[in-house]
Amino acid sequence: MIVPGSESQALGAALAAETGEPLAAVRYERFPDGERMASVEVPADADRAVVVAATTTDAAHVELLQLQDAVREAGVEEVVTVLPYMGYGRQERAFEPGQPVSARAVARAISTGTDRVVLVDPHEASVTDCFDVPCDVVRAASRLATPLPGGLTDPLFLSPDAGAVSLAESVRDAYGRGAVDYFDKVRHSGTEVEITPGDAAVEGRDVVVVDDIVATGTTMSESIAVLDDRAAAAVYVACVHPLLARAARTKLERAGVEAIYATDTIERDVTAVSVAPALADAL
Amino acid sequence: MIVPGSESQALGAALAAETGEPLAAVRYERFPDGERMASVEVPADADRAVVVAATTTDAAHVELLQLQDAVREAGVEEVVTVLPYMGYGRQERAFEPGQPVSARAVARAISTGTDRVVLVDPHEASVTDCFDVPCDVVRAASRLATPLPGGLTDPLFLSPDAGAVSLAESVRDAYGRGAVDYFDKVRHSGTEVEITPGDAAVEGRDVVVVDDIVATGTTMSESIAVLDDRAAAAVYVACVHPLLARAARTKLERAGVEAIYATDTIERDVTAVSVAPALADAL
Amino acid sequence: MIVPGSESQALGAALAAETGEPLAAVRYERFPDGERMASVEVPADADRAVVVAATTTDAAHVELLQLQDAVREAGVEEVVTVLPYMGYGRQERAFEPGQPVSARAVARAISTGTDRVVLVDPHEASVTDCFDVPCDVVRAASRLATPLPGGLTDPLFLSPDAGAVSLAESVRDAYGRGAVDYFDKVRHSGTEVEITPGDAAVEGRDVVVVDDIVATGTTMSESIAVLDDRAAAAVYVACVHPLLARAARTKLERAGVEAIYATDTIERDVTAVSVAPALADAL
Amino acid sequence: MIVPGSESQALGAALAAETGEPLAAVRYERFPDGERMASVEVPADADRAVVVAATTTDAAHVELLQLQDAVREAGVEEVVTVLPYMGYGRQERAFEPGQPVSARAVARAISTGTDRVVLVDPHEASVTDCFDVPCDVVRAASRLATPLPGGLTDPLFLSPDAGAVSLAESVRDAYGRGAVDYFDKVRHSGTEVEITPGDAAVEGRDVVVVDDIVATGTTMSESIAVLDDRAAAAVYVACVHPLLARAARTKLERAGVEAIYATDTIERDVTAVSVAPALADAL
Repeated sequence: MIVPGSESQALGAALAAETGEPLAAVRYERFPDGERMASVEVPADADRAVVVAATTTDAAHVELLQLQDAVREAGVEEVVTVLPYMGYGRQERAFEPGQPVSARAVARAISTGTDRVVLVDPHEASVTDCFDVPCDVVRAASRLATPLPGGLTDPLFLSPDAGAVSLAESVRDAYGRGAVDYFDKVRHSGTEVEITPGDAAVEGRDVVVVDDIVATGTTMSESIAVLDDRAAAAVYVACVHPLLARAARTKLERAGVEAIYATDTIERDVTAVSVAPALADAL
Repeated sequence: MIVPGSESQALGAALAAETGEPLAAVRYERFPDGERMASVEVPADADRAVVVAATTTDAAHVELLQLQDAVREAGVEEVVTVLPYMGYGRQERAFEPGQPVSARAVARAISTGTDRVVLVDPHEASVTDCFDVPCDVVRAASRLATPLPGGLTDPLFLSPDAGAVSLAESVRDAYGRGAVDYFDKVRHSGTEVEITPGDAAVEGRDVVVVDDIVATGTTMSESIAVLDDRAAAAVYVACVHPLLARAARTKLERAGVEAIYATDTIERDVTAVSVAPALADAL
Repeated sequence: MIVPGSESQALGAALAAETGEPLAAVRYERFPDGERMASVEVPADADRAVVVAATTTDAAHVELLQLQDAVREAGVEEVVTVLPYMGYGRQERAFEPGQPVSARAVARAISTGTDRVVLVDPHEASVTDCFDVPCDVVRAASRLATPLPGGLTDPLFLSPDAGAVSLAESVRDAYGRGAVDYFDKVRHSGTEVEITPGDAAVEGRDVVVVDDIVATGTTMSESIAVLDDRAAAAVYVACVHPLLARAARTKLERAGVEAIYATDTIERDVTAVSVAPALADAL
Repeated sequence: MIVPGSESQALGAALAAETGEPLAAVRYERFPDGERMASVEVPADADRAVVVAATTTDAAHVELLQLQDAVREAGVEEVVTVLPYMGYGRQERAFEPGQPVSARAVARAISTGTDRVVLVDPHEASVTDCFDVPCDVVRAASRLATPLPGGLTDPLFLSPDAGAVSLAESVRDAYGRGAVDYFDKVRHSGTEVEITPGDAAVEGRDVVVVDDIVATGTTMSESIAVLDDRAAAAVYVACVHPLLARAARTKLERAGVEAIYATDTIERDVTAVSVAPALADAL
């Protein structure tokens, strides 16, 4: 049985179709005092529930705890929790004294209601250590090759920093051809800064900038502007998690992005492909 | 200049591309006390601003008033307000004594900041009377033919009630072939109820259920279930405004919908086509 | 060290004053993507942190997990969590199949970050079983006697049902004089219903209706109306948790309440006395 | 008839009691799609409605428009709108190019539904110009003298800047005795800064810091700390609008405030006196 959180209903349906498991009937209600209740119609013979819920809001966190509890209460033996996007996942350490490790705080809470957790492309792999139950990671970046236009000109798959280069490689490999590189700043002396890839590397080529998350879009739109200056043919953005907070979308558009492609770990209008096949393998 | 509200950034970009007008740089901020501020970078020579904002939340309503004011304050002469989806638009009369005409309440507020309003497929045409400035309606349902699969079998375009049949006709006309009908209940005697279209009419055919809004999805999922009982080949949902509140998506999926197609009046993952071309004509 | 949640800052200060423990410097921030961060300035020698947080919203639940984690991360050995008002506490069992036991779901989450939990007058005592760590209950209803006017006429302390009569007794005992009773409906035959206390019992007396929570105020305002019909002198409301959702306050006022007194488990304008002394004893 | 907004129910009741006008029965509902509806039970003979609503949230702004419309729709002739606290009131001009004058934006909207507006102690008096209908200001700071302890020692009423000194005077005048001063920084040379009032002026005295709003509490807590350094006996805070955003309350407490007193323009636990008498005079 696939049990979708309110923010992951499309992915839930895709996962049900992919795995052949039934999609559970769910209800998301809100009481006059502001409290919510998520309930699940559980068939008598259900022995496993896969709760799929992007925790993009605080309400989604509480809802997830309720969905986990509802299936347990109904007698389901095994509960698997899929976090296509894990809220607070980037706060996986205290950057300043006095800060919480928010990822750990929510991970522990989530662990109390499940036998196992599955994450999709977390920002930091170490976030899996925050859970008290087994936690697997599914790599879904390769799915982003599917919606890309077929005839890209001499394509370059570029990550905004060295850390995300494996994501760019995944997309390139799935696309079947093209080069991989990443942005790198080299400071020569005083104010002289060289940014690679250089002009020659991108001129006339179609560039796909690949990242795990696009949040406020500031870094990404700067990258697009640099590529535009260097006469790239067209610049595409491919990201796993299209958070697109505040004016992110407008920033990317104004910077001259050709198109944005994302998965359904966060369900947005830029969602162009499902991670369901990758998840089905892990389940 | 196209000025997008935070909920209509993709449509804003599409409209900018369609009209050739520049997409304005906007900022959406939130202060510690919870108040928001939407500001706009206005070029010195801008003489018209088209503010495009789906008012799907109360915050979006206040943001719209701010965007209108920001462009006026910057000296823009003409302000056009496009409401791709108008929040509270369905509350265009008092259904019980003591109720507000919420559509009128927000329409008057919006009218104070604009010279003209453009609505996309309002639920009730009479809602245009709520505004104190000229208000035009753009019909965009025909856009929904674009994402539909090309080879539908003997397609039937169906509206959930007689009132929405013109929407179904628009989609059919744009699609180029197929029949149009609507659900109708005829009560013969006592408990005997006949629902048209009858079994014969839908058997083996691909059916596209067309409506302006899908809100909680209850009516729509019941329609799909009836069509499934009557052996329709595949059932598609096409709607202008994909509100998809609460468990709507899951209801449709469980009822057996083949696919859901919507426009970008509300930007969701089911958004498959832009209303920008239709809006560009009206501007 | 007393660490207040954002909804319990007054109680946190009161508890610091009562216990002599320092009130921690806290920061509540919100990032552009909507995520929050609550951080705590922790002195090097702090060995115990008492996190005090009413979980009246979903955001407050996540914030609590962060505050617990922040003090642990800073090396504090013992974490005590005081829930002056426990959100979802009334959902301590599944009332319909498929529902979650929401109280248990959040209790387990809270348990992961603390050594011990203290609740103030939970709606159901059994909710303490939902926690995985020791959970104590503090009875604070007697505090409500403090703000009551001193010269009540032949006071009657009344609970809306038999279950809450011990609360009424607590207030009466602390007040020092007066009778205790509860509303009871006896159905004689067909439509004949007798409600006790009868007319004689309340006529000319000052009545204090005592309950643990006032949520939407429907039951409470009906009780006040009955008492008014029966010629009670003045009707006061005393409650521990002034949730006062939606139009609750207006309902009580229209029903003719003389005054409303509540504690600071939820910090509202009707808060008239602190539960800090009762909590200090338990800590 | 007094029609309270959901955030001003206590003030609404106080105003009804003060004026003898009936308190209207209101309902605040929320639909599954997130839209709200505020409705009002309007007696047939009601010829004037006083809508009282602090617009502390975006939802409260939309609710106010609905309440205004509901009473108009029910045939009420005169609608007076009281904004005990006017959200966005401090944004009464564009501080940077491209910003909206948010106060004007919401004022225009509010003006469409009312014959007259009454504000309580706006941050800037010029905000009244933002309305398209007559707008009166009620000064309620003097009300803050009521909850102050009677026996203050040689009291000094202090405003955080020269602009707010008239508020401090109002409170002093109502209190009946004491001096008035304000914080002022004089820079002598280099790093030497003199802040008045000087040490002598505050030593051993009870000081009441008076301001219109306490928002994040940063300025106010710094003032308290300075007074504490200078050996003031006790420091009280008196403010009209207790916004108390984020950690404001904790900051004040840690700075050593003795007590905080505020009115019911925003209904908080520090609310200690009603502005209803001042409003009744203006109505």
